[in-house]
Amino acid sequence: MGEFELIRNYFAAAPCAQPGEGVALGIGDDCALLSLKAGEQLAVSTDTLVAGVHFPEVCDPFLLGQRALGVSASDLAAMGASPLAFTLALTLPAVSATWLEAFARGLNAMAQQCSLRLVGGDTTRGPLSLTVTVFGAVPVGQALTRAGARPGDLLCVGGTLGDGAGALPFVLNQRSAEASTTQALLARYWSPLPQLALGQALQGKATSALDISDGLLADCGHIALASGVGLRVERDKVPMSDALLALFNPDEALNAALSGGDDYRLAFTLPASCLAELIDAGWSIHVIGQVVEGQGVVLVDGLGHDVTPSTRGYQHFRETR
Amino acid sequence: MGEFELIRNYFAAAPCAQPGEGVALGIGDDCALLSLKAGEQLAVSTDTLVAGVHFPEVCDPFLLGQRALGVSASDLAAMGASPLAFTLALTLPAVSATWLEAFARGLNAMAQQCSLRLVGGDTTRGPLSLTVTVFGAVPVGQALTRAGARPGDLLCVGGTLGDGAGALPFVLNQRSAEASTTQALLARYWSPLPQLALGQALQGKATSALDISDGLLADCGHIALASGVGLRVERDKVPMSDALLALFNPDEALNAALSGGDDYRLAFTLPASCLAELIDAGWSIHVIGQVVEGQGVVLVDGLGHDVTPSTRGYQHFRETR
Repeated sequence: MGEFELIRNYFAAAPCAQPGEGVALGIGDDCALLSLKAGEQLAVSTDTLVAGVHFPEVCDPFLLGQRALGVSASDLAAMGASPLAFTLALTLPAVSATWLEAFARGLNAMAQQCSLRLVGGDTTRGPLSLTVTVFGAVPVGQALTRAGARPGDLLCVGGTLGDGAGALPFVLNQRSAEASTTQALLARYWSPLPQLALGQALQGKATSALDISDGLLADCGHIALASGVGLRVERDKVPMSDALLALFNPDEALNAALSGGDDYRLAFTLPASCLAELIDAGWSIHVIGQVVEGQGVVLVDGLGHDVTPSTRGYQHFRETR
Repeated sequence: MGEFELIRNYFAAAPCAQPGEGVALGIGDDCALLSLKAGEQLAVSTDTLVAGVHFPEVCDPFLLGQRALGVSASDLAAMGASPLAFTLALTLPAVSATWLEAFARGLNAMAQQCSLRLVGGDTTRGPLSLTVTVFGAVPVGQALTRAGARPGDLLCVGGTLGDGAGALPFVLNQRSAEASTTQALLARYWSPLPQLALGQALQGKATSALDISDGLLADCGHIALASGVGLRVERDKVPMSDALLALFNPDEALNAALSGGDDYRLAFTLPASCLAELIDAGWSIHVIGQVVEGQGVVLVDGLGHDVTPSTRGYQHFRETR
């Protein structure tokens, strides 16, 4: 099977293929064409996942397809953008119809969940890796950047943290436990659901936002730097799931939540006056600290003592998993 | 050095960094933000280059940077789009400051040449490969797709063909010759200059277009299929460079021009009435055949006899180079 038929067979039947949703021309030409409404800007983000680095060499292609798109779409959520479309650059050591069929099913399932339409890409031969580029629309001036946090704002997260990192030893078969207890963590790892609706709900309210991929403390450092402020994180307020706390001792669980990465939850800063309205609207928002004058990120215990750990998150080339 | 500093050090200083050129927010946040003018659509294309498949494992990083962006930008030319921006997903086995510095210089040189601004990307650890996604703007309804060729139109190309494929044995050190004779071919391989201005000049004139990456005959097949027409290519009119003809015998040179790929020249169809105006404007356009009723691509000799070769171009997974 040639490259062209391969792409057509497995990926061209992607969901959300209604015309008029911002996609003027989809797969099959030299470029795809996207349309924006008046007053909108295009949000763009690119992420690569490499076998053996970001996921195990041997893994379920359905889950990989889900995860690859979920991870990328999370960047749209972090900007408050409405999802439009994505491209997929897939590098494969060999063609396997079974593998491709399952991968495409996983990808399409997440595409449907996120209302994203596949509009193009590339298929090449080589060591397994994939690069997803996502596109969203955001009203001019309304994008949630990392740069607007102000002293006095609340520091919030959109859900429990640490599940993705907690899942890793089970993903890598370094640890085992009953399926009923690991299921919740593995679902968070393999099928991270981007908080797209929350991101859009934060438009005009949050003063800064990002999605947590490198670990809460490391990513809070990005907000602090971009906004020129300090962030104070209250250790005892960091939300963790029952599943994480059941599988790990409290120190391990907290470490996963603070520094583990792979959360794909939104972290954002919010004037205190905006909190009640969002909670009334039904959003599950956890206040975990405050924006302060100064710089950097400090973790404090219940007595206000500095308990900041020395290593804060995952960086490629610096540490290995 | 961490991932973030690495990206900032080498790539953030990209050229064309004037605000107001369609880039509302560049590198450093979860997404970049692009703006379009009223009446414009966004053209998007993604290409991956893998070490050992699309370029030699050991090669000059400056040249690789040039080539990676040139190849991708050629897809914007093929749509008649004005260049805006690009993202780079770079997967590297290890950090080498020397390598990155040279690669970034090559990338930036091509970015400047093409008026493209780097707006984001990802840097990951793994086997060397890179995925470039390019963005351009095109007036609504003016994009040059593959689908509009009509019987009676002329089939044209924007320059000599076969140099990229002719360079390959020298790139791979399978063949050697005096530098003075290989220089022109190697330049076409390592620094393919996308025909962006020609693409824009063809807006409202060409009825279909693409850039030749898989070989003239294979790519003409894409136009024929998308347009529901046949294409008749006159073998004796296919333009070849003096350098190609000096280094190869006539059969080898013709094979490179017809089926070699890596040309990154535009192929397009044009009503005969539009030709004179483009030539008067100074464009070097080679008429190499006609659009006819029917389907598929036929190569004919000077007597009109069918001399179509059986294999027509490069496809990943089907053949290896």
